[in-house]
Amino acid sequence: MRKNLGPKTMCYPMPVYIIATYNADGTPNAMNAAWGGISEEKEISICVDSAHKTARNLVERKAFTVSMATAGTVVACDYVGIVSGNQEPDKFAKAGFHVVKSEFVDAPLIEELPMALECKVISYDQETCRLVGEIVNVCVEESVLDVNGKVDVVKLQPITYDPVNHHYLALGERVGLAFQDGKALK
Amino acid sequence: MRKNLGPKTMCYPMPVYIIATYNADGTPNAMNAAWGGISEEKEISICVDSAHKTARNLVERKAFTVSMATAGTVVACDYVGIVSGNQEPDKFAKAGFHVVKSEFVDAPLIEELPMALECKVISYDQETCRLVGEIVNVCVEESVLDVNGKVDVVKLQPITYDPVNHHYLALGERVGLAFQDGKALK
Repeated sequence: MRKNLGPKTMCYPMPVYIIATYNADGTPNAMNAAWGGISEEKEISICVDSAHKTARNLVERKAFTVSMATAGTVVACDYVGIVSGNQEPDKFAKAGFHVVKSEFVDAPLIEELPMALECKVISYDQETCRLVGEIVNVCVEESVLDVNGKVDVVKLQPITYDPVNHHYLALGERVGLAFQDGKALK
Repeated sequence: MRKNLGPKTMCYPMPVYIIATYNADGTPNAMNAAWGGISEEKEISICVDSAHKTARNLVERKAFTVSMATAGTVVACDYVGIVSGNQEPDKFAKAGFHVVKSEFVDAPLIEELPMALECKVISYDQETCRLVGEIVNVCVEESVLDVNGKVDVVKLQPITYDPVNHHYLALGERVGLAFQDGKALK
């Protein structure tokens, strides 16, 4: 028996993206976005309300990075979701984050977050809130790569947001092989 | 030390959405989309290539459902990702899926997948592939709800796609409380 929960913003998994930009004075800013996703090959789209400091920065710098929040950085990643860069100019530093300069875009990488997409703004519409970014590079700390140079999810420990229970969850064990398991039904 | 992996379509977590629509003859169709996400309050956006049978159905019926793939249905959910509805008209049945009629939209729900978003098409652009849907209802099998009527992630067992290693992963343990843990840094 199915129960109707009404029109809700609810699905699994939801991401925990940390969007980082430079402010007008060159200091870094970061915000938590537990929504959005890959919208095309090498393209990510995330709703950013025009009231956010990040929104102004996107318009001015035309660049942003998207880091994956991780199990070991939950407190910092949650903090940048509950405090506004408009009210707290030292938000980035208070989170304990340190800037790593991006080689590709005019936006900061975050030393403490080992995987990030470096993006150029394709478009940002203040009316609809839709930010579309071209992924020009993915950079990853060597410590979370496996022996073949590929991202090791167990080392990275990316997290996901549970929109119903307001929890952050780790990713769990492997339950299947994509493009493989379904062949059994062919 | 960070390693540059280049411009890749790679982030964590990525979803495993099963998009279901009705074909012109009233039979059901389903496809696997391991990308896209919530684009606004009560709105989901997913790139659907115009070559997909689903694309034609979206234009004609103006509706779709998005079910969460689960650990227990990996084989079926992978199958609808590797077989085309254009080549295999019985795709939905061969996956072992059964239709449940939606009360809200002109698109099928899938009996075997306990959580789904029922969506009306707001827009679909064949050029850009962008499908935008209004979430008019979320329906969930009672068996995956907790005693308070809320989705229990441990019972639902939604999965996520690892784009680097092409694995399906379960969601794991709770590692934090959203809107709470960050207060420690305030």
